[in-house]
Amino acid sequence: MKAEIISVGTEILLGDVVDTNASYIAQRLVPFGIDLFRKTVVGDNKRRLVRVLRECLERVDLIIITGGLGPTEDDITKEAVSELMGQKLVFSETIAQQIKKKFPHRQIRGKTVFKQALVPSLAKIVSNDVGTAPGIIFEEENKIIILLPGVPAEMEKMMQDGVVPYLADRVKNKDIIRSRVLRMWGIGESEVEGKITPSLLHCANPTLGLLTKEGEIHLRITAKFSSKVVDDKIKQVEDELRNELGDYIYGVDEQSLEWIVKSCLKKKELTVAIAESCTGGLISHRLTNIAGSSDCFCCGIISYSNRAKIDLLGVNESLIEEEGAVSPGVAKKMALGVRLSANTDLGLGITGIAGPSGATDKKPVGLVYIALSSRTKQIVQKFILSGNRERIKWGASQAALNMLRKYLLGLVN
Amino acid sequence: MKAEIISVGTEILLGDVVDTNASYIAQRLVPFGIDLFRKTVVGDNKRRLVRVLRECLERVDLIIITGGLGPTEDDITKEAVSELMGQKLVFSETIAQQIKKKFPHRQIRGKTVFKQALVPSLAKIVSNDVGTAPGIIFEEENKIIILLPGVPAEMEKMMQDGVVPYLADRVKNKDIIRSRVLRMWGIGESEVEGKITPSLLHCANPTLGLLTKEGEIHLRITAKFSSKVVDDKIKQVEDELRNELGDYIYGVDEQSLEWIVKSCLKKKELTVAIAESCTGGLISHRLTNIAGSSDCFCCGIISYSNRAKIDLLGVNESLIEEEGAVSPGVAKKMALGVRLSANTDLGLGITGIAGPSGATDKKPVGLVYIALSSRTKQIVQKFILSGNRERIKWGASQAALNMLRKYLLGLVN
Repeated sequence: MKAEIISVGTEILLGDVVDTNASYIAQRLVPFGIDLFRKTVVGDNKRRLVRVLRECLERVDLIIITGGLGPTEDDITKEAVSELMGQKLVFSETIAQQIKKKFPHRQIRGKTVFKQALVPSLAKIVSNDVGTAPGIIFEEENKIIILLPGVPAEMEKMMQDGVVPYLADRVKNKDIIRSRVLRMWGIGESEVEGKITPSLLHCANPTLGLLTKEGEIHLRITAKFSSKVVDDKIKQVEDELRNELGDYIYGVDEQSLEWIVKSCLKKKELTVAIAESCTGGLISHRLTNIAGSSDCFCCGIISYSNRAKIDLLGVNESLIEEEGAVSPGVAKKMALGVRLSANTDLGLGITGIAGPSGATDKKPVGLVYIALSSRTKQIVQKFILSGNRERIKWGASQAALNMLRKYLLGLVN
Repeated sequence: MKAEIISVGTEILLGDVVDTNASYIAQRLVPFGIDLFRKTVVGDNKRRLVRVLRECLERVDLIIITGGLGPTEDDITKEAVSELMGQKLVFSETIAQQIKKKFPHRQIRGKTVFKQALVPSLAKIVSNDVGTAPGIIFEEENKIIILLPGVPAEMEKMMQDGVVPYLADRVKNKDIIRSRVLRMWGIGESEVEGKITPSLLHCANPTLGLLTKEGEIHLRITAKFSSKVVDDKIKQVEDELRNELGDYIYGVDEQSLEWIVKSCLKKKELTVAIAESCTGGLISHRLTNIAGSSDCFCCGIISYSNRAKIDLLGVNESLIEEEGAVSPGVAKKMALGVRLSANTDLGLGITGIAGPSGATDKKPVGLVYIALSSRTKQIVQKFILSGNRERIKWGASQAALNMLRKYLLGLVN
């Protein structure tokens, strides 16, 4: 099966919004062995969209379009495709009721509901659990056109729950493509390459792909085999890579560092409290993004000022005066202080210079101390991170979560 | 002048890398009044790239291509375009020397230098100060094709130093295009549309464009006039829109809610402390993303457990038992507690149900109470937000920052 992806929206065309939807969809098509020809971005312009569609229909069997399904006048995707496919838009009372039921507290105007509930007469509907615009699947003479909204959270949920199962049913390949991503932090791309056996690195099937993403290295194993053996083939390569890369690998596929930390805490029935300075709440924010984190995360204290470090965490004023707020001693006291005040098993303390100001001769922007305190142990580590303020905050949160992970897995002494 | 942008690379096509280059380039073309038709992504496949190019040449006068200029075998852009334009690749000793001079410490292989120094016989060269691959400009019969490398740092520098001045010289528009974005929160897309005078909404120049981004509404005014009047024209429309949309507009262009809040606090020389429950540190994280926020943000307490609310913020145990942790009373006590414990001018307290679990019959997922405490005032507001856990956390942080903004501007009583 050949496919193309079209993103509709003047804001994407003119570069105000980066098109992440097309990447997300492309990644979900690969496992089906679908041959992706092109991705195209076109503005909110009906004539130009129709022209793109006509061309695509000559080249491929499957077209997935995102964007332009909203309630306003410049949303033209549904209208353009319906016209092209010769289908009338009819009002669906069922969809109107679903929208009203889903948003009972939100004031959604009649006009919005009406436009969203207009659907092509012969198309399949992909329900939208997150927002108001339903997805639409047109099928005609071996051509499939799928319309999804442009809001990433809506599109992703509908792709996962509606479109992927639909395609699995339609695409009946003998060989299937599977992939698995090994996620690493604290190691560079060329170092990873250097550790992998060359024959494995250049193997044609399974293949390996390296990608740097927000300071992490993602190593993707992709295999194309019959459904009987494909999982074993991936497992073999994964085992070899784990031998070569060891503890740098912290998780697989969609597992984030915070997800891993939360799982480890839960498994060991441990609780943690966090005292943050330079990260300003980011570590607690990331941990509380994971549903159920309240089982193991009790409280966080963002001691941004020295006064807060002294009053809320019991850091000695003299220690700050002698060693400075960014020092191993203060990190340790923060970890201890937050553990005692929250009465948790573990305390994490982090202090550093996120920049752009605040550096001194001896303490550069990017210097970060992270400490971990348990009932029996006290650890502190130093990191020097680079980048702008937000990158340093992110890197520091990665370092802290990774330190917590390694401690929980018994990899730190 | 009409233009299209092509991004070449299998890693972009298959979604492993998000295409930020095309957005960057598009943003730089807009001010010239260049009419952008499409953006296309195609893999490292010479035949398919040539097909895309032929089609583009029929539609537009200017094509900018990024990617596929590297030294490896799958880099085919230069070869494909040269063939199409009937130009031979010849070795340039000058470019070879430049590359060697630029990277004296780096081991660059002879083969790499040789491939990068092959350039089309009649093309203009755009020098690359960051990496090794030079940019190339083909000019023929009013058609321009520009080739730039895919590495964002190299491409951006070459776009800025080489291509933009080149285009400024080629495109001799009397009129220039300017735009300004008005940012809103707490109002829906169709409600915004309803408030704007129809003649303004449908005006051809300046035009208005509406965009929903992470729950915010961004309203873009774009005007194309002579440099003498363009700013006035935008100002006129902005004034009218401010009349119609009032306080919903919180900022313009790149100003985020946290940036506005930090500016207001600084101007009024006020300090704030934040007690977060359901947002888990996100509000403090956002505020501390702004450089210099330490002047006005002293500390945050993430009281995720009831125990933390009682011990760290002085919320009465009986109040939690009677009204529940998610209640206006607890939000008020949290705001008061954090203000007193940090000794700041203002305290913000937020409690809610981020989901997916935690809802009761009377308290749905998405219910959030936000309280503000000053030395003379106590305010609490109720919100019902929708979406998944991360969306609710984000929406709650928006609501809290907006409440703080309105209070600081004297818009809340």
